[in-house]
Amino acid sequence: MTPDTTADIPDIADIHLARVRIADWTRLTPVLSDPGLNQELGCMLYCKCENLQRTGAFKFRGASNAISHLRENGIEGEVATHSSGNHGTALALAAKLDRRIAHVVMPENSASMKIDSVKRYGGIVHFCAPSQESREDALEKLVKEGKIPIPPYDHADIIAGQGTAALELVQEVPTLDQIITPIGGGGLISGTAIAVDNTGQQVFGVEPEGAADTVASLEQGERVKCWTPDTIADGLRALIGVRNFTVIRHKVKQVFTVSDEDIRQAMYLFWQELRLVIEPSSATVIAAIRNNREIFAGKKVGTIISGGNIDPGDWLSLTDRG
Amino acid sequence: MTPDTTADIPDIADIHLARVRIADWTRLTPVLSDPGLNQELGCMLYCKCENLQRTGAFKFRGASNAISHLRENGIEGEVATHSSGNHGTALALAAKLDRRIAHVVMPENSASMKIDSVKRYGGIVHFCAPSQESREDALEKLVKEGKIPIPPYDHADIIAGQGTAALELVQEVPTLDQIITPIGGGGLISGTAIAVDNTGQQVFGVEPEGAADTVASLEQGERVKCWTPDTIADGLRALIGVRNFTVIRHKVKQVFTVSDEDIRQAMYLFWQELRLVIEPSSATVIAAIRNNREIFAGKKVGTIISGGNIDPGDWLSLTDRG
Repeated sequence: MTPDTTADIPDIADIHLARVRIADWTRLTPVLSDPGLNQELGCMLYCKCENLQRTGAFKFRGASNAISHLRENGIEGEVATHSSGNHGTALALAAKLDRRIAHVVMPENSASMKIDSVKRYGGIVHFCAPSQESREDALEKLVKEGKIPIPPYDHADIIAGQGTAALELVQEVPTLDQIITPIGGGGLISGTAIAVDNTGQQVFGVEPEGAADTVASLEQGERVKCWTPDTIADGLRALIGVRNFTVIRHKVKQVFTVSDEDIRQAMYLFWQELRLVIEPSSATVIAAIRNNREIFAGKKVGTIISGGNIDPGDWLSLTDRG
Repeated sequence: MTPDTTADIPDIADIHLARVRIADWTRLTPVLSDPGLNQELGCMLYCKCENLQRTGAFKFRGASNAISHLRENGIEGEVATHSSGNHGTALALAAKLDRRIAHVVMPENSASMKIDSVKRYGGIVHFCAPSQESREDALEKLVKEGKIPIPPYDHADIIAGQGTAALELVQEVPTLDQIITPIGGGGLISGTAIAVDNTGQQVFGVEPEGAADTVASLEQGERVKCWTPDTIADGLRALIGVRNFTVIRHKVKQVFTVSDEDIRQAMYLFWQELRLVIEPSSATVIAAIRNNREIFAGKKVGTIISGGNIDPGDWLSLTDRG
């Protein structure tokens, strides 16, 4: 069933409310800027380092907001989601902080680091075959047993929670001209676009070429519902969500695509200049600015560095330094 | 010639002055705290992340202060030092920002990443044989040619510059009970101890077992002048400096030692909890707290995470994840 996307999309007040809800759980992440990186990119880049957020990604904001909202409404009970990545870990910790159990359906071929993370925060892992259908079937079974589903991006509380990162960023650097974020399922970019809707920044998105379903959806005027992703950016392989696509259509100026090779180089550049190991999804924004200098030249550009959950051995292989 | 160690040691006013001098060049690094890490260590740890300082280490503070002080005194000319690590890189960038040339004598077996860093910031590298004597001879030759020597730690401007990190830390977290830093040549700990002399925090230091010349010096009541270091913490292999030892004797409560194995485990723990790749020297403080829980239990502990300049491949090997 298609949700009522106009009624169920958060507004700026929801993001402010989310920020209050999650303030005690989340970390006020640093905004870093580096002259060497600026010189390389030809703009002044302000990086909101969500790779240093708890659980290593911005996803903890949305999960915390969703769980806190349940608590506020007096809704008890265990929660469930399917995730091969950061949302599962984020939900596990948010649930733990609220003394709940989180069930996370994970493909049996998930990275061992991600499986370990979910377990470390007390989440219960349910393995399934590595297909979308198996994931959804396994989650549906859990929901039928009474677990409360918390989807990874196509949900008002999740969008509002993710928007708090941009809210903090524009409060710390109010003179930004532009903001750019990666696009996977669209939770981060839609939250960002809503957060800065009245502060005047142009919002841009980036997708890997091998997961450019949002660009395709924008071109054909409706959501692409079938796409087999092929990219090293494991956090961006999801299809764009319904609510998320609605926000992007109305509020995002342009969506760029970058190649996996661009991403690899951007990951290394970020390490070289800032000594931060970031996952491929995060590096897409650096790559997009590098490839589209004329758009960002001389501007004050904000970005959300979305996550740092990559095994350093995989980082070495991807950046060809191994 | 032994310097006049009472006349030539900075005081708190020098550190405040240094902070003003270097404010435009250095980054106000973030202070990070993590509930998972706190639980593991049994205290509340506040990490001043100098691994995210420009050039990837606190060393940029001291080098910037020394160069700015030259400028203030109207002293023109090229500068020189010997360094196999972070001080050389820091001096190269500080000199570049002041439109000077920095000459860095480096052992021919230095890590290629460190050689590249010095060059990237415009420093001129002079290779020498990998012995203390060769390094000093090569530097002396440069000084005879008229270059201004900027030593890595045993110098008032360097000590004052390094002290600015602790000054920022106690201003951001004024309620700290204790502060702990690594000890190599002693620039960081002596600057730290002077910076917090009137704010009441106990100051602790840490050395690797294989470079514990400060502990030995404290035991015998005078500086040990001969020690062949054997530790993975490449940033802490130097002998303690004259001024630095004087400050430590008077102001540091206790110096711990940690094994290389402790350091390896602490490096991995820091990555696991905070998603930061840090060099072995930085991890010594985490290891020391872990080994001496009774001293830090329940306290608010500040630390300077000294640097992040390690090749991720080397990080993997050292943490046995490769």
